[in-house]
Amino acid sequence: MTDITDCDPATLCMAHPESLHLAPVVVDATQVALEGGADPAFGTVRWRTLICADRTPTSDMVLGVAEFGPGDRLEPHRHAPSEFYFGLSGDGTVTVEGVAHRIAPGVAIFIPSEAEHEVEAGAFGLSFAYGFPRGRFAEVDYRFRVAS
Amino acid sequence: MTDITDCDPATLCMAHPESLHLAPVVVDATQVALEGGADPAFGTVRWRTLICADRTPTSDMVLGVAEFGPGDRLEPHRHAPSEFYFGLSGDGTVTVEGVAHRIAPGVAIFIPSEAEHEVEAGAFGLSFAYGFPRGRFAEVDYRFRVAS
Repeated sequence: MTDITDCDPATLCMAHPESLHLAPVVVDATQVALEGGADPAFGTVRWRTLICADRTPTSDMVLGVAEFGPGDRLEPHRHAPSEFYFGLSGDGTVTVEGVAHRIAPGVAIFIPSEAEHEVEAGAFGLSFAYGFPRGRFAEVDYRFRVAS
Repeated sequence: MTDITDCDPATLCMAHPESLHLAPVVVDATQVALEGGADPAFGTVRWRTLICADRTPTSDMVLGVAEFGPGDRLEPHRHAPSEFYFGLSGDGTVTVEGVAHRIAPGVAIFIPSEAEHEVEAGAFGLSFAYGFPRGRFAEVDYRFRVAS
């Protein structure tokens, strides 16, 4: 299952950006490139973008999977859109406004608009799905904490 | 981890419904009631609602987990909000506007606004996370196909 989209290109052009009458999009995470790991401001987290209107003929939502090796981190940051995490494998700590919460498979965390949050994976690594109620990841204004 | 919310009730009342300055919400799917299975219009699918502003002090997004036994079904329906599925376990067929797509762990499916869709689980059952860019499940106008 390597098809990123079932749209034909003509339909895709007409429908892009956000509009009604998009075709469904099917994305297999194992077929999507792993990104990140290069910018120390983000930390050592890596991720795969599954649904995002910059890349897929979709609208209204961004969906991805974040992947952490043992002890890997996503540094403290905030953004205007609220966000969800949903634990898939391993475990770790999600600290929101200074309060630590454990994430593990089957645990959902709602991160409110503008809440500062950070992640540290446990000894066996961590992966979780994340999503925003925005069509494009570029609409999410990541602001990392400035080192003091 | 049985805490549905880290809010204190006073904050919760002030913040409810959607507003800024909500506290984070942590929900363990294993601690949430399984619903459904009683209305043949929906089919035999059951689900757990994790994030929904009717139940949790959250906003902007609905997140849940759908659970199917072998061969269980979600009958054909449509709704105005777009929706995502993200496969967690087992496999099955998601048919969107008459075209069948396989869902399995790690596969994301974007279902466009108003697209008719239905689900049939495979021989070993199926579970997937689903989400809507709406604060409340009640804002999602489920319309099932009328039997002909």
